[in-house]
Amino acid sequence: MEAASSTFVAHSPDASRITLDTLNEHAKAAEYAVRGAIVARSNELRDQLAKDPSSLPFSEIISCNIGNPQALKQKPISFVRDVVSCVINESLLDDSIPLPQDAKDRARIYLSDTPSMGAYTESKGLASVRREVAAFLERRDGYPADTENIFLTNGASAGVQLVMSTIMRDPASGVRDGIMAPIPQYPIYSALSTLLNGALVPYYLDESNAWACSEQAIVSAMEVAEEQGVTLRGLVVINPGNPTGQVLSRGDMESLIRTCQAKGVAIMADEVYQENVYKEATTFQSFRKVAFEMDAFEGDKPLQLASFHSTSKGFLGECGFRGGYFELNGFDDEVSAVLYKMASLGLCANTAGQIVTGAMVNPPREGDVSYTKYEAEKKAILDSLKRRAVKLSAALNQLEGMSCNSADGAMYAFPQIQLSQAAVEEAAKHGMAADAFYCMELLNETGVVVVPGSGFGQAFGTWHFRTTFLPPDEQMDSVIASLGDYHDKFMAKFPL
Amino acid sequence: MEAASSTFVAHSPDASRITLDTLNEHAKAAEYAVRGAIVARSNELRDQLAKDPSSLPFSEIISCNIGNPQALKQKPISFVRDVVSCVINESLLDDSIPLPQDAKDRARIYLSDTPSMGAYTESKGLASVRREVAAFLERRDGYPADTENIFLTNGASAGVQLVMSTIMRDPASGVRDGIMAPIPQYPIYSALSTLLNGALVPYYLDESNAWACSEQAIVSAMEVAEEQGVTLRGLVVINPGNPTGQVLSRGDMESLIRTCQAKGVAIMADEVYQENVYKEATTFQSFRKVAFEMDAFEGDKPLQLASFHSTSKGFLGECGFRGGYFELNGFDDEVSAVLYKMASLGLCANTAGQIVTGAMVNPPREGDVSYTKYEAEKKAILDSLKRRAVKLSAALNQLEGMSCNSADGAMYAFPQIQLSQAAVEEAAKHGMAADAFYCMELLNETGVVVVPGSGFGQAFGTWHFRTTFLPPDEQMDSVIASLGDYHDKFMAKFPL
Repeated sequence: MEAASSTFVAHSPDASRITLDTLNEHAKAAEYAVRGAIVARSNELRDQLAKDPSSLPFSEIISCNIGNPQALKQKPISFVRDVVSCVINESLLDDSIPLPQDAKDRARIYLSDTPSMGAYTESKGLASVRREVAAFLERRDGYPADTENIFLTNGASAGVQLVMSTIMRDPASGVRDGIMAPIPQYPIYSALSTLLNGALVPYYLDESNAWACSEQAIVSAMEVAEEQGVTLRGLVVINPGNPTGQVLSRGDMESLIRTCQAKGVAIMADEVYQENVYKEATTFQSFRKVAFEMDAFEGDKPLQLASFHSTSKGFLGECGFRGGYFELNGFDDEVSAVLYKMASLGLCANTAGQIVTGAMVNPPREGDVSYTKYEAEKKAILDSLKRRAVKLSAALNQLEGMSCNSADGAMYAFPQIQLSQAAVEEAAKHGMAADAFYCMELLNETGVVVVPGSGFGQAFGTWHFRTTFLPPDEQMDSVIASLGDYHDKFMAKFPL
Repeated sequence: MEAASSTFVAHSPDASRITLDTLNEHAKAAEYAVRGAIVARSNELRDQLAKDPSSLPFSEIISCNIGNPQALKQKPISFVRDVVSCVINESLLDDSIPLPQDAKDRARIYLSDTPSMGAYTESKGLASVRREVAAFLERRDGYPADTENIFLTNGASAGVQLVMSTIMRDPASGVRDGIMAPIPQYPIYSALSTLLNGALVPYYLDESNAWACSEQAIVSAMEVAEEQGVTLRGLVVINPGNPTGQVLSRGDMESLIRTCQAKGVAIMADEVYQENVYKEATTFQSFRKVAFEMDAFEGDKPLQLASFHSTSKGFLGECGFRGGYFELNGFDDEVSAVLYKMASLGLCANTAGQIVTGAMVNPPREGDVSYTKYEAEKKAILDSLKRRAVKLSAALNQLEGMSCNSADGAMYAFPQIQLSQAAVEEAAKHGMAADAFYCMELLNETGVVVVPGSGFGQAFGTWHFRTTFLPPDEQMDSVIASLGDYHDKFMAKFPL
């Protein structure tokens, strides 16, 4: 981009006019694959199907590109919706309305903390909900939390954006800030790094070892950052993994904490899939819990940990409400105060999302009216997700040239596909990477929308795609069948 | 700030550690007065009152610092809440539930556009709601709108942030971008300019002429921008005014449009108070309507206009839901595509806020079940606001050394106060500007929270404060009485 510092340029109307050429260069450069070109194409095809249902070789678009469970027929948890509708419409608290008493009681608690869901809340969120989050964290981890360190947000993405835009400095100040992120990663981290003009320093997960996160990979990446003069401001860890679906081992977590504490690098723990653990004999352990158990928050230079959670994933799948929170450990009050000011620029997180967050972290207890139904709904969703996780990865492993680690957690399979040189060349003719070409053709042939591995990052020379296993059981079978047929034809056309 | 480019610094854990010293300098510098020091003090006093109600010379904190009507007992519009609760909880659509049929019907329309309120929507928002916004714009202005140019957002602030962060370039690219904003202004514009490392070029509203916006003021400010080498990327206009409460004349709007079109400067029209017009024989006219009537969107170089609206203000006052939208006119599709990508980083605006937006722009019509109640609720709120607007400015004008333009629109009075040199010196002893000192003492004496004029900008050597007139009628009387008593005592202590 040419410098435009002459007075003439500042004068000219064409210099002021907002065109693609004059937009912020980092905004233009940011990439966000889960809503990229393939999704745009899927919208075109959906419109075409609506106009002429017989014009395509399939009858519907199946969106496996994004973890959006309720778009794929997952039902909401009744208790959540009962509580939220009561706080929004106080006329429903009347005894004559057949909603469960415990939902009404809960709504009354929230309403005692605010004059109305229509009022702005404190910029960190309703105190009543933050107390519920703090109690949840203590129950989950065995260590208390301070409500002042909890910020309610419009989903986890908004929390990540708030934190990253506060900690990443302007290179004009003479530093080159960066964050470390796993490869493959969920692309919000790379997109925000680009937008904030920071470096993304990759550390590679070990595909051959169930996407483990080795100490060696972390240390090597930190050395690369040092060599490149990048000041690391944080290390992102996604557990359970997205797009990779692994659940980190206790040993990997401990070494990560030790290394980050020693190097003074904050951990940004993306734990939005904490309820989505399918592996036998495995329970989710938070970075918060492990760090407390290691006494990592003790001493002069405590570990700095920001943990993110969301109402969008888990078994709730309440993506649309944009609910979530982050919690800070090991940060100075002055840092928290700047984050608070940044939060206040958006005034507060939306109140409905705040209430969904409260209902998520403080579910009905045994003996409550809603308990049995809640537990049944939860179990049905998690059992089905587990069934689909196992079925999908097994099916993918049957296909020629495809291999897939088991999806132990989260909502995704991330199979590796071997693609021939002929496929790579054909893709290049279409101006695409080979995996993008594979995924675009899959969409055109079957209506199934997945995201190429290049959108998440992948080891050089390897090809992957990410697919959710969110279609309901019966539809999952047909997705697996379509995918298998398509894959066989593709491999016949471009043999290895 | 010192450059930190040596390898040693990048190595050092202290360089990575997140402290106040190592935060993003623009984030630290951004100021947002409506939630600043006085509000922090009010929270302390509220806590003190809760613990010991008799420890202060007042019994409650009255928050006149922010336009948050439902925090001050304004009731929500029933139709809005009926619709939102039904889309969130589909069990309420049952015939046995005593909610109005038109609210249920409306909820069914929204639900036919999405599988669930728990699903992410398209990043621009639900098509059904964007169609309602387009129909509203056409009804209001007489000119059709394209749903593709409408983005639903988490309140107007999120829309402003999205647009500004896309159009303001990094100074490292060799340009110095800026936006023009009125002085006084709502501080989101100055805060975001600071955060995005852009210039805020002020243009001064004419207090002696009911806060009019003269062509001369605009042209002079543009000249200043040129002299300073600032490339203007937009001009913010707030109509009705915040904090100033004026309604712009047609003539001022036309000259503003002409000047911006000639200079190639986009208009960012903050029209969130469009329903709040109290002046006799005055109706709100949007910049969109005036620009269409002037043919400003015709030709090679059409005017560029981004118009912002919100569910938070008007008579709805649904701040907590964080609903709103912006609409674009005169922008290229490529620019819209980048804005869309930026919107997709947050996935979508919260669905409850989207529905509130739909209910706002498409209210019950004559003959609908909810119509009579809706109209009565709307009239009661607007009549009361008008009553309070008149009463407050009249009362302020009675006080010694205070003068206040009439609040023809919005929710605020912005009186000018004359303060003596002794008051200025006393304030300086407390490390405060004179108006901040006046407002802090007001809080300490009366529990009334207002915002000093310095938070919005004011002509050099003048002092103001902004207060809402949102307390209910009876409480408004006591606020006026407390303010008068306090003011008299202050003036007795620091005579002019």
